[in-house]
Amino acid sequence: MFSRFSVLPAVKGSIPVLLAGLFVSVSVMAAPARNKRQAPKPVAAPAAPQASKLGLSDLVKNSSASDWRPLNPDNTLYLELEKGRVIIELAPDFAPRHAANIKALVREGYFDGLAIVRSQENYVVQWADPDEKRELKTAKHKLDGEFTIKYASNLPFTRLPDADGYAPQVGHANGFPAGRDPKNGTAWLAHCYASVGVARGTESNSGDGTSLYVVTGQAPRQLDRNITLVGRVMQGMELLTTLPRGTGALGFYEKPEERTPIKAIKIAADVPEAERSKLEIIRTDTATFKAIVESQRNRGGDWYKVPAGYIDLCNVPLPVRVQK
Amino acid sequence: MFSRFSVLPAVKGSIPVLLAGLFVSVSVMAAPARNKRQAPKPVAAPAAPQASKLGLSDLVKNSSASDWRPLNPDNTLYLELEKGRVIIELAPDFAPRHAANIKALVREGYFDGLAIVRSQENYVVQWADPDEKRELKTAKHKLDGEFTIKYASNLPFTRLPDADGYAPQVGHANGFPAGRDPKNGTAWLAHCYASVGVARGTESNSGDGTSLYVVTGQAPRQLDRNITLVGRVMQGMELLTTLPRGTGALGFYEKPEERTPIKAIKIAADVPEAERSKLEIIRTDTATFKAIVESQRNRGGDWYKVPAGYIDLCNVPLPVRVQK
Repeated sequence: MFSRFSVLPAVKGSIPVLLAGLFVSVSVMAAPARNKRQAPKPVAAPAAPQASKLGLSDLVKNSSASDWRPLNPDNTLYLELEKGRVIIELAPDFAPRHAANIKALVREGYFDGLAIVRSQENYVVQWADPDEKRELKTAKHKLDGEFTIKYASNLPFTRLPDADGYAPQVGHANGFPAGRDPKNGTAWLAHCYASVGVARGTESNSGDGTSLYVVTGQAPRQLDRNITLVGRVMQGMELLTTLPRGTGALGFYEKPEERTPIKAIKIAADVPEAERSKLEIIRTDTATFKAIVESQRNRGGDWYKVPAGYIDLCNVPLPVRVQK
Repeated sequence: MFSRFSVLPAVKGSIPVLLAGLFVSVSVMAAPARNKRQAPKPVAAPAAPQASKLGLSDLVKNSSASDWRPLNPDNTLYLELEKGRVIIELAPDFAPRHAANIKALVREGYFDGLAIVRSQENYVVQWADPDEKRELKTAKHKLDGEFTIKYASNLPFTRLPDADGYAPQVGHANGFPAGRDPKNGTAWLAHCYASVGVARGTESNSGDGTSLYVVTGQAPRQLDRNITLVGRVMQGMELLTTLPRGTGALGFYEKPEERTPIKAIKIAADVPEAERSKLEIIRTDTATFKAIVESQRNRGGDWYKVPAGYIDLCNVPLPVRVQK
């Protein structure tokens, strides 16, 4: 039975499938397809002349080693849960103070034994010290928000061709979805699915990284420039998105036993080589990436009848795979 | 302990909270907030002069009975799972043939005892007959796709003030997010979180409603105008989004026991009054709804420092509550 579902005739060849060892966080999937009755017939003419001929899976298959970069072990966190490892890459280009403070917290063992305290449907999961008793050792208590940065001319930025409602320009910087305003020379990470941020109170400097959140729902871009984003989940989102939703206000768990314990958070560089997850992510400053974006702006193949001619920043796939 | 989390000082008053009896599918939530250390101090000046003064929860609280409409029992489906009821409202204005065929399938008992066969991270869940053996009785086998409709002048449509990358115009029609092209007089439902669609093969007429999908991830708007959307989940999304992800290609479950059984799908009008879920949804053709949209385009309160000045179609909240 399963074999008929797994090889959906309607999508064979033309639409990307998950490749073994390739984890893709965003929109790498075939359209919802029927699996029966009609045998697929070739469509006489392409749906639109501009539709892309190579799909995502082809472009990934044809990519070369230089189209990928390994995650930086010094900036990669392993969030260890009972059910598995969530892998986060920090973005010190955008939030140097917060990235450093989170690494200090990790090395103090601050997070070990804490818990995921919140899961709100179509929004975020969040972890924190439920007892609010942990003391900081070397890490700082109060950090000025890093909502935007003044971008240096050497910050790579691959612009998307399309307009965005939330930012004058959007694109990717070293694999992170970002916005940019050339008028005042600022840039910022964008709130897409899998973005990791620093919870804060009302005041801009009230976040320190002791409580982090991960976006699990429709991109809450209204948070952009209002709170410090510090990185992105590169693997293991399903360990967070399938958690039961909290029934308290804002998705907080009402009973301690509903929370998900955090075994530890570690920095990849501190973990013995043999225990590291060796992942690489597509580089976003390459011709291959531009081709991927174009293939997603105008999907080819037989299935699509009307190419969108557009892609939203948070729909751009950022393939991650086991290092080759 | 919980009380400190549930009353987040940073968001009290200024940011909407989930109200008792109010279920909101999209983005009705406070920002990720710290819960400790800094007592919130009032910000001296508003972040921006155009920020909206009343938040979503205020606007809902101040709404009048005429700002709401009950779900239409003739077009409301109850997807009954072991863990609870998922409530779907069909949109026959946009997909009359498919809505009618799905209702015929429901009344035949076609779905009873079938299963959710697919859950793909950040994309969709999908149900179908895993054995592909069920015969249709009165329902039709093959339906022409209803990817767009020629809209009648009496189709209500409340346009959003902002531009959209995927459609010439976007807005809401009777509570459904939709796109519209005045040049050719067509309209269509948009693929947002919670949208319900009709799986199909390569050919446009290869869907019939026997296999339906629900959007659980970042809005896959590239599917718009390529497949028939037929309605929207109004309550119970968390019953679908927390399902384990399928480990097969495209998120299909590899083993039959991994699937989630469907006890039954029923039409609300066929269910005894006492067993119905009496819900109402905000009307999208009212001044209250326009004020809600504006409050979300430019969030007020002390927490937000930079109002977005924009809202994406799929971020517009569509509150649903128990009928009063």
